[in-house]
Amino acid sequence: MGKSKDWLRGLSLMILGASLCGRASAQDSRSLGLQTWVQPDLNLMPVPASVQLGSGNMKIDPGFTVALTGHTDARLSGGSGRFLERLAKQTGLLMTTSPVNGRTATLVVRVDHDSRPVQELGEDESYVLEVTPAGASIIAPNDLGALHGFQTFLQLVSVAPDGFAAPAVTIKDTPRFPWRGLMIDAGRHFIPLEVLRRNIDGMEAVKMNVFHWHLSENQGFRVESRKFPKLHQMGSDGLYYTQDEIRGLIAYARERGIRVVPEFDLPGHSTAWFVGHPELASGPGPFNIERKWGVFDPAFDPTNEKVYKFLDEFIGEMAKLFPDHFFHVGGDEVNGKQWDANPKIQEFIRAHGLKGNAGLQLYFNKKLQGIVSKHGKSMVGWDEVLDPALPKDIVIQSWRGQASLAEAAKQGYRGMLSNGYYLDLGWSAARHYAVDPMGGTAADLSPEEKQRILGGESCMWSEYVNAENIDSRIWPRNAAIAERLWSPLEVRDPASMYARMHALSAQLEWLGLTHENYSARMLRRIAGPASSEEFHALRTLAEVVEPVKDYAREETAAGPATSETPLNRVVDAIPLESRVAREFSEMVDKYVAAGCRDAASGAQIRAQLILWRDNDAKLQPLMQRSFLVKEVAGTSQDLAAVASVGLAALDALEPGGNTDQAWKAQQSAVVQRAQKPKGQLLLMPAPAIQKLIEAASVGGSCAAAKQ
Amino acid sequence: MGKSKDWLRGLSLMILGASLCGRASAQDSRSLGLQTWVQPDLNLMPVPASVQLGSGNMKIDPGFTVALTGHTDARLSGGSGRFLERLAKQTGLLMTTSPVNGRTATLVVRVDHDSRPVQELGEDESYVLEVTPAGASIIAPNDLGALHGFQTFLQLVSVAPDGFAAPAVTIKDTPRFPWRGLMIDAGRHFIPLEVLRRNIDGMEAVKMNVFHWHLSENQGFRVESRKFPKLHQMGSDGLYYTQDEIRGLIAYARERGIRVVPEFDLPGHSTAWFVGHPELASGPGPFNIERKWGVFDPAFDPTNEKVYKFLDEFIGEMAKLFPDHFFHVGGDEVNGKQWDANPKIQEFIRAHGLKGNAGLQLYFNKKLQGIVSKHGKSMVGWDEVLDPALPKDIVIQSWRGQASLAEAAKQGYRGMLSNGYYLDLGWSAARHYAVDPMGGTAADLSPEEKQRILGGESCMWSEYVNAENIDSRIWPRNAAIAERLWSPLEVRDPASMYARMHALSAQLEWLGLTHENYSARMLRRIAGPASSEEFHALRTLAEVVEPVKDYAREETAAGPATSETPLNRVVDAIPLESRVAREFSEMVDKYVAAGCRDAASGAQIRAQLILWRDNDAKLQPLMQRSFLVKEVAGTSQDLAAVASVGLAALDALEPGGNTDQAWKAQQSAVVQRAQKPKGQLLLMPAPAIQKLIEAASVGGSCAAAKQ
Repeated sequence: MGKSKDWLRGLSLMILGASLCGRASAQDSRSLGLQTWVQPDLNLMPVPASVQLGSGNMKIDPGFTVALTGHTDARLSGGSGRFLERLAKQTGLLMTTSPVNGRTATLVVRVDHDSRPVQELGEDESYVLEVTPAGASIIAPNDLGALHGFQTFLQLVSVAPDGFAAPAVTIKDTPRFPWRGLMIDAGRHFIPLEVLRRNIDGMEAVKMNVFHWHLSENQGFRVESRKFPKLHQMGSDGLYYTQDEIRGLIAYARERGIRVVPEFDLPGHSTAWFVGHPELASGPGPFNIERKWGVFDPAFDPTNEKVYKFLDEFIGEMAKLFPDHFFHVGGDEVNGKQWDANPKIQEFIRAHGLKGNAGLQLYFNKKLQGIVSKHGKSMVGWDEVLDPALPKDIVIQSWRGQASLAEAAKQGYRGMLSNGYYLDLGWSAARHYAVDPMGGTAADLSPEEKQRILGGESCMWSEYVNAENIDSRIWPRNAAIAERLWSPLEVRDPASMYARMHALSAQLEWLGLTHENYSARMLRRIAGPASSEEFHALRTLAEVVEPVKDYAREETAAGPATSETPLNRVVDAIPLESRVAREFSEMVDKYVAAGCRDAASGAQIRAQLILWRDNDAKLQPLMQRSFLVKEVAGTSQDLAAVASVGLAALDALEPGGNTDQAWKAQQSAVVQRAQKPKGQLLLMPAPAIQKLIEAASVGGSCAAAKQ
Repeated sequence: MGKSKDWLRGLSLMILGASLCGRASAQDSRSLGLQTWVQPDLNLMPVPASVQLGSGNMKIDPGFTVALTGHTDARLSGGSGRFLERLAKQTGLLMTTSPVNGRTATLVVRVDHDSRPVQELGEDESYVLEVTPAGASIIAPNDLGALHGFQTFLQLVSVAPDGFAAPAVTIKDTPRFPWRGLMIDAGRHFIPLEVLRRNIDGMEAVKMNVFHWHLSENQGFRVESRKFPKLHQMGSDGLYYTQDEIRGLIAYARERGIRVVPEFDLPGHSTAWFVGHPELASGPGPFNIERKWGVFDPAFDPTNEKVYKFLDEFIGEMAKLFPDHFFHVGGDEVNGKQWDANPKIQEFIRAHGLKGNAGLQLYFNKKLQGIVSKHGKSMVGWDEVLDPALPKDIVIQSWRGQASLAEAAKQGYRGMLSNGYYLDLGWSAARHYAVDPMGGTAADLSPEEKQRILGGESCMWSEYVNAENIDSRIWPRNAAIAERLWSPLEVRDPASMYARMHALSAQLEWLGLTHENYSARMLRRIAGPASSEEFHALRTLAEVVEPVKDYAREETAAGPATSETPLNRVVDAIPLESRVAREFSEMVDKYVAAGCRDAASGAQIRAQLILWRDNDAKLQPLMQRSFLVKEVAGTSQDLAAVASVGLAALDALEPGGNTDQAWKAQQSAVVQRAQKPKGQLLLMPAPAIQKLIEAASVGGSCAAAKQ
């Protein structure tokens, strides 16, 4: 099983003859006692709880049909129709969508009983999928499991040597965590409904079940309120969701087995509320929609009883609009400056014996929790809301980390992890993948405490995304987080994850997601009219750079970005993780590990380096014509420079090459300079080239190869 | 002006300092007496009737605004809003869409008077667009011209050295022909509305003004008829447009200055009508929707008076649904077999003294024309309907050629050309571009007769296209035909056309057209899960092949295709014209013309050939895994083989190379074998490589280079 060995060890159910990605050699298979080697590999993501491979394939042809033989409802039959449409797109075959009976169908679905009218946390999502050469079946307690089964089946189908096929397999599957969410921040940049819809389709594909809709921010209040229309009318630049649209999206998500949890961030992150309702703020108005990014001073006034009356009415309205049992109130990052500056508020703190601003926020949270509870909901909040004074039905969403989450669990609160799952920080999929809700101090919790860790949510904060590039910031990396939350803990080999993630990524485009195609379109705008060769040169550079990580994007010479800053630069047009650079780095690692003696690998590395070295010259005409290409001129030169260094390292491995300390220092200095971000871009092949220098240098692992 | 010289000569208005594409050298400019060299080039398509370049640029930034200062209507203000949206997409800048007044706007639009409520043939479409560094204006007699002006402005905007900009210019523009159409066959494959809408957007971008909607075929009757619901219910597999949808599409087209002409093909091409109404046919039923392609026997019975009663009612219904003054009745390709086989019909022919089946069809056409005319419309038909017995208000659409069109004009009929504009035949853009409605015998018509030639229509017959790949069969080549129909006759340099077409092609994707992006998505399906290198190898092959031309697609070993044949093969996933092969061929031509002495070009050609030679090996793993890749194995080997031949030719140019007749024969044989289509693909670089052999051979133009 090669690369997949690690996680396989821990699977509770034995996998017979299965190969979840990775090209296993006959020897590998024998060593694990596996019986057969099956093509195509199973590109399943998230990896199911248990997989048992059968023998042979089920052919997928236009005669493919589905029968619903057990308990059936609108969601299941709708899901079946969508499944057939997806299958048709994925294969390019015409599929009959007319219903058939169980005797003649090629896929028989049997659901036992109803699911809850409003989807609930912890509903059974399990299913059993069996595929044989003669046909397939999905058996599930309710339609949620059947929907998951459809997605797994779609991932099994691939082009094969003699047509489209799904391998014979028995899959018994159930999630590790019941709360597997994606948060999208529609406050900072408004995200249109069609973009949300296709991302919800993507969530369904990777079996996520909570869409957390961040709806109010300093930069925008995004929901139509009929009770308080000034909220959306004055707080949104006209960019908000109507109540009808919201009901539509909730129905859309429900059809896909996904709950919708709204978030209204209180008492901070709230400037947009105060544009229409300055009387609710702790400081004097008037207020304007915030255009900058960051943490701002405006906050609700917890000492004002009218605030609670307002929130009671508002939350009452929203509690009806959003049927989910959970209601998110934010609660993060109150800087307290308006409270400090308001003598009345400070007097209130003293009079009530509150512990400073933190105590004031707790006072606010207690009253807020009462309101949320009165309207039949459980409150969710970020770490800051955690306090023993609040009842145990609240849920903590941790942006601070596993320690904070574990602390909540110890105190008897349920929680979920988002620290480590911030999609906007530009981390690699592998880095997100390594973060586990049960990791860190959470690993030491008692079994009872562990039960309180519900799962996690990836977060797409939207300072630097808009409708055009948001898909590419979420996908495909979000699939790695989805797998972390669904699959057994032991599923954690990054190489296997990457192989499966890339296979899935191509499939996700059938849903209308644009994460793969958007880049070429944006780069064409950046290039302007260009010859094939010029455009190819721009793509070659774009393929090996990544945006700066974490919060480094905020540091610019041009001054901080705002909500009006165009997102049309190269840094906006590239994926957050460079597949080409990662694959190059793996190739170099293998080459060096083998003592730099494999001539074929050496030649392949050399060919790549020559291409990069010569790329800058090809890009010159575009730099002259486009300011957006000119911005990356430095990075392009750096690519040429490090490629030359890499070639020098390969040359140095030839007999007679000079690799003394001076040489090494000189070459390393070039690489080091190239690692300094320019145009907010990181040059990703640089570390691998540094490895080549080290290996080739006197005393390096390949220095002996010269003899 | 380099490449653009030819057509410039003929422009009636002098172009001062303009450069419509092509990288002009200072010397070129001097030799033409041009005053300035302006960046960026003007990538206008279709080329306007007159262009006068000013100096400097108008910056395009988020402060850009539009004011409508003259006569304003819903179409104009809608067009203005769409223009701003397009501009925002094309630049990635946020644009204010709120209306402003004429004093502060950066683009002022002034329209003089109303256009007709139902758009008419020959309405004034002219406009004057002036751009200066300080602002821009569009002046037009009516909103049709203003809409065209918006599109021209959008084409002027490009990324520039210091931001987005449009060059200062004065454009006075008006079309050469009043009828500039695109026909889409929604009969053979149903084409969804959203696909039609984005193609109508594309038509607007290239100033086409007639959408010809081919709505009935042997394979499908696509319109809801409330009078005769069996037509769409039994004749369409459920794939038809409702009347509401049709009204919506007509409104959509009208907003874009585009007329919608419906076609109901009569009396042949009509099997789908007879599924629900066998009583109208000339032969015995029952009838089924046709699944095969070709010309079929079923035809209306011209001797049956009930047929005319039925058509009177049906056309009455459709005449109300489609407001355009023209109504297309097809009339093509009646094979007459059902008429021959029906003794009653033959007796009718004898009794009425008709000239055989042709006479019978004329009898039918006369009665049909009466019905169409009764409902207030002018009849349009294919060549076959031409007969002096019909009134002069009918319009002939010629699929047979300019001679046929000229003949109609001589007889006093108006006509338009489609021969030479069949997009499904896979011709190069240059080949379509060379076809002119006034070409051939039409050139000899009198001025009065020439007036009767209204223009032309490109035709997208849909045997081998569906919603997934139709955009790629229409675009970008349709832009070359659009230019032929709009621009002055003298605009005909293919090199200039290609450069501008590629620039436009990238812009068209902002309309949602998928002609550039679809290929990667389809190739990913064909490849299945693949490494970057494997997928890159598939793309490299796909970039240099084209589908077989004309009707060769019908000749398959697997038997003829049907409407149920999947369109998911490599032949379906590639553009109809290979840009890479064309550019390679141009490079070889230049190299050979210069006596093969330019070392840099030689090196560039060599690098390309090495890449192609080595590509087959990289593609091998995918061939093992995917039947759809296996299908192109022969073509991949051919590419490697001809690349090796090309490299041998380059080597032969070195001193001492052997290029005797035996060598030449041997190498040419390899190229010849590779030119035989495999998998219905043509290997496009083969002819250029043959040129290299010729040049390098003894007596060839480069043989001397060896000395």
